[in-house]
Amino acid sequence: MVYVTKHSGEREEFDPQKVEYALLRSGADKTLAQYITEEVKRRLYDGIKTGEIYAIAFELLSKSDTHTAARFGLKQAIMRLGPSGYTFEKFMSRVLAEYGYKTKINQTIPGRCALHEVDIVAENGKMKYMIECKYHNTQGMDTGLKEALYSFARFEDLRDAGNDFTAPWIICNTKVTTEAVKYAECKGMRVTSWGYPPQGSLQELIDGKSLYPLTMLATLTEDEKNKLANSGEVLLQDLISMDARKLAEITGVPEGKLKPLEEEIRGIATNLPKGL
Amino acid sequence: MVYVTKHSGEREEFDPQKVEYALLRSGADKTLAQYITEEVKRRLYDGIKTGEIYAIAFELLSKSDTHTAARFGLKQAIMRLGPSGYTFEKFMSRVLAEYGYKTKINQTIPGRCALHEVDIVAENGKMKYMIECKYHNTQGMDTGLKEALYSFARFEDLRDAGNDFTAPWIICNTKVTTEAVKYAECKGMRVTSWGYPPQGSLQELIDGKSLYPLTMLATLTEDEKNKLANSGEVLLQDLISMDARKLAEITGVPEGKLKPLEEEIRGIATNLPKGL
Repeated sequence: MVYVTKHSGEREEFDPQKVEYALLRSGADKTLAQYITEEVKRRLYDGIKTGEIYAIAFELLSKSDTHTAARFGLKQAIMRLGPSGYTFEKFMSRVLAEYGYKTKINQTIPGRCALHEVDIVAENGKMKYMIECKYHNTQGMDTGLKEALYSFARFEDLRDAGNDFTAPWIICNTKVTTEAVKYAECKGMRVTSWGYPPQGSLQELIDGKSLYPLTMLATLTEDEKNKLANSGEVLLQDLISMDARKLAEITGVPEGKLKPLEEEIRGIATNLPKGL
Repeated sequence: MVYVTKHSGEREEFDPQKVEYALLRSGADKTLAQYITEEVKRRLYDGIKTGEIYAIAFELLSKSDTHTAARFGLKQAIMRLGPSGYTFEKFMSRVLAEYGYKTKINQTIPGRCALHEVDIVAENGKMKYMIECKYHNTQGMDTGLKEALYSFARFEDLRDAGNDFTAPWIICNTKVTTEAVKYAECKGMRVTSWGYPPQGSLQELIDGKSLYPLTMLATLTEDEKNKLANSGEVLLQDLISMDARKLAEITGVPEGKLKPLEEEIRGIATNLPKGL
């Protein structure tokens, strides 16, 4: 029995089904998904990190299907955004900023009847959105009607207190149920998720401006990623342009030992095609 | 290491802290809670059911503090309402019926923007409530603002489609956060939970008419309770008045073997004081 170390530090029995399923969901065909899963099993060792497993799968996938590889790598990388420093809210706030929004995260705002935690406030000239981020660190956890309902009730309560939000917006890293989408559309609420809407889904927003999260890198430890996040670097492209000295300074990795990281960054930058 | 068998059938390591904590939360003082926990530990055996553990604690508590015992027994019994046949919705529907409401459970009703599952519809001459039941089978899981928000949004969407509900009502078996109560009161939403409101809390509704759930009985198996629930018997008082032959018929327990059950029913009926 081989145990893997999860993102959170917990240990869990290795389950090849999970790897195969993740590959299939990214669009790999059955034969390829099975082949890669077998390869992953061959390279396992006790205590391996889930991040490493996905890096192996990503590498193998890149060799035969670059489009699927990009989708797979990105989806897994978003799943690995932490509950700690390097959060989905922080990442999405940066992505929205690249699309011209002025953003603020984790705002506490009084409504008429309750005090609300708003994940992101995003405004451009026309719109001021109250954004609810739903982040799940496992596959298959869909965002449903309840989340859509409470986001709308929150928006209403904030508006009733005189806040000038123009619409609520749910952004999530997994799928959204049909019922939730139906309700949101009917209520004029915006929803962005993995695969939805057909134009402007989460992966399109990210890919459209190559805003890949740092968690795509398997060579960085949890701690190193958090250090980077805390100093404001949340994207892969931030690192591409960063000089080795600064990278060493922030992460605490000696300059002489940065080679694997630099190689990985270059590798991913080459592997990620536009328009995934 | 002693393992206990949970309500769900899962096995879990015995944790004396949980017993002590449950006793303290029901109002037992520290010395008594510790003494009872020690006694429980002495009587443990591998594979013991959580229901039996609480029955032992209940019995010991009854001998020295009947009020706390009643509160403790009731709270645990509600926690043991199943995810299967014998549900919290079914129990609460019966309790409300005893208070003069006409009730229906698990209704699917179209709103303006979505199709909603309503746990209980309860109406008397004046009010027609849309009731959302929040049931937790562990201590310390409070119902919070999100639940209050989505219940209200659901109510609004149903009303927008022309449904004649007069107010939403959240009923839950654990505590409700202050923020959720504040929002609910502000929105005209009724909330009934363990300990809230001071007049007419869940325990008062139940105790006011001695509407104790069958799950207070440790001598019944899961299967026997479900059989009773499916034949419409959800309260202890239903059994007190039932003749042995019918009880045997429904539960499948031979008439000759009903003695422990009958003794337990009598015991609890004697132990539960009014006005807990």
